[in-house]
Amino acid sequence: MSKGEETRERILDRAFLLAGRDGFDGLTIGALADELKMSKSGLFAHFGSKEELQVAVLDLASSRFTERVMIDAFKAPRGLPRLKRVFENWVEWGLDARMPGGCIFTQAHAELDDVDGRPREVLAESERVFQEALAKTVKLAVDEGHFKKGTDCEQFAFELEGIMKAMHMFSRLLRDRRAADRARTAFERLVTSHRS
Amino acid sequence: MSKGEETRERILDRAFLLAGRDGFDGLTIGALADELKMSKSGLFAHFGSKEELQVAVLDLASSRFTERVMIDAFKAPRGLPRLKRVFENWVEWGLDARMPGGCIFTQAHAELDDVDGRPREVLAESERVFQEALAKTVKLAVDEGHFKKGTDCEQFAFELEGIMKAMHMFSRLLRDRRAADRARTAFERLVTSHRS
Repeated sequence: MSKGEETRERILDRAFLLAGRDGFDGLTIGALADELKMSKSGLFAHFGSKEELQVAVLDLASSRFTERVMIDAFKAPRGLPRLKRVFENWVEWGLDARMPGGCIFTQAHAELDDVDGRPREVLAESERVFQEALAKTVKLAVDEGHFKKGTDCEQFAFELEGIMKAMHMFSRLLRDRRAADRARTAFERLVTSHRS
Repeated sequence: MSKGEETRERILDRAFLLAGRDGFDGLTIGALADELKMSKSGLFAHFGSKEELQVAVLDLASSRFTERVMIDAFKAPRGLPRLKRVFENWVEWGLDARMPGGCIFTQAHAELDDVDGRPREVLAESERVFQEALAKTVKLAVDEGHFKKGTDCEQFAFELEGIMKAMHMFSRLLRDRRAADRARTAFERLVTSHRS
């Protein structure tokens, strides 16, 4: 990595935390400059605008999520074992103490869903890609004979998304220590009702 | 209603829309004064601080939600019919075109969950009360013999919350027209798996 790339990485790492804690709207070049004790003009050299900075953080979040939740799950055999691995990785991601605000996507979804612009587009596109990947993981469980034929894989992905969103609310807002267990119970029921 | 009460109501009505659209952090006395073409000092007479204004909007949201989703459902017979009515009311609430940002609570949850203070407390408390009311509605379905004995009513409420959060994301972020149908399918599955 060149020096410039290293600096960019260090900036993005901090921006990722800042967005998780204070939201994407709070992620301004000025706030980030304060946080990093860098000049605003130095930051502008890396990111030309607040929007570009937000997009870079969303890209970083996507690549971290893909790495830790989806790619890691390829170590498990295709079908139900892999789906379970995706689920457990996702729970871990949502409860990760390194992310001060919990899942950064849940933050981004609520904040950016009604704000037209590039960040919204990038976020929606990454969510679509993720939902497709989830549905495909479920489809493999059908192909392997773990789930019933005719399982609606997109519907399964929708419901799984809901379980994770509920976990987020119970853990972050209600500070309920049973949040992850509730999510696991819900996932078990979801799996059981599709077993062949 | 006195003139003062009327003015307060009119202000809150607009503040409710503003918070739904721009978030609670964007709900400042200044922004609201601009929106209403009122003086900031006039607004301060009604709400002493941004925090107080946020709490008043959360209270208004709670009372509207309780009225339209929960109290309306008392018209349906206790048990499963009432639970279904709660669900349909909730879907309607979430898709209500009068709320420009969709469910205002989903907005508030993501935004306030990590910000210590009165608004967070008020929001968490109203969510706890709501989760209890939901669980009680499910419990009546057990008592009436519609659901199996031993149904975990709190778990049911958790999963129902998840379905609504997923619907919010699919409808707001992904602009997916099938969001409500997906929610209904998920609800049907949830109900079916608990039928006695």
